[in-house]
Amino acid sequence: MTLLCLEPLTKTAFARFGDVVEAEGACHFTINQGFAERFNDLATVDVTMDGGSTNISVVEAKPRPRPIAIALMERHPLGSQIFFPLQDRPWLVLVCADPRDASSYCAFVATGRQGINYRRNAWHHPLLALDEGSRFLIVDRIGPGRNLDEVWLEEKDWLYLKP
Amino acid sequence: MTLLCLEPLTKTAFARFGDVVEAEGACHFTINQGFAERFNDLATVDVTMDGGSTNISVVEAKPRPRPIAIALMERHPLGSQIFFPLQDRPWLVLVCADPRDASSYCAFVATGRQGINYRRNAWHHPLLALDEGSRFLIVDRIGPGRNLDEVWLEEKDWLYLKP
Repeated sequence: MTLLCLEPLTKTAFARFGDVVEAEGACHFTINQGFAERFNDLATVDVTMDGGSTNISVVEAKPRPRPIAIALMERHPLGSQIFFPLQDRPWLVLVCADPRDASSYCAFVATGRQGINYRRNAWHHPLLALDEGSRFLIVDRIGPGRNLDEVWLEEKDWLYLKP
Repeated sequence: MTLLCLEPLTKTAFARFGDVVEAEGACHFTINQGFAERFNDLATVDVTMDGGSTNISVVEAKPRPRPIAIALMERHPLGSQIFFPLQDRPWLVLVCADPRDASSYCAFVATGRQGINYRRNAWHHPLLALDEGSRFLIVDRIGPGRNLDEVWLEEKDWLYLKP
């Protein structure tokens, strides 16, 4: 049984797959007559290919049974996809270069103040919440065309996130 | 002194100014092998005019002194603008049809699960947080051109939000 170890999510470690969307460490400036600080331009939203536009959604997620078995990876060839947590709760992010190469996987623990933006065609696991009733804001693509590739692993090849 | 009364934010009351971005009452469907519910397509993101694209930002806001004096309204002629709360805390939304017509103002209390999307050219007040360290995700426009109109009211014409 292949166990994937979790590491803290950082911009550097995630750079191959997209953006970490967070105020921490970002450029900022004061707005609103001094009553707010803006951390600007945190992600590259890439959704206009083939007539797409920006889609705003909310998702309510629940945790999977432990240890979490990885049987499916997916990617979106036509658009980037942001998940941003709406509660200040840690959650998990799993990405890979090649779903059939276990050595290419990276598993991260994100804080409740870190969102991620999967680049177009970045392989990733569906959302991995750690708590019941976890809410996220999604910014991705809406429009024509087929925007989902999936790879299902045979059960003998499943990976597991280290508990 | 003109006092503006606050009412609860609803899609119907806000419709002239843009979208209320919320899961409550929205169409939804199950995704992620049953581990999440998606409330899809909650806002019209309108940012591509004159070469613009989607800008993702985080803002950290603090409350203004009470009673809150309204001296400034603004609008964005080139793009829509979403504010979505990142804590489950109420906040205030103030919009109007004409900044110089006190009778055209609408003041709302939003829940911590309601975001708003100001339509292009909707007059609105800068963000009104009620608590220190209130964080919001912003989805608006980045790109060339002048995307801000402001109207400053003379002090004798200031409006006040009912405490």
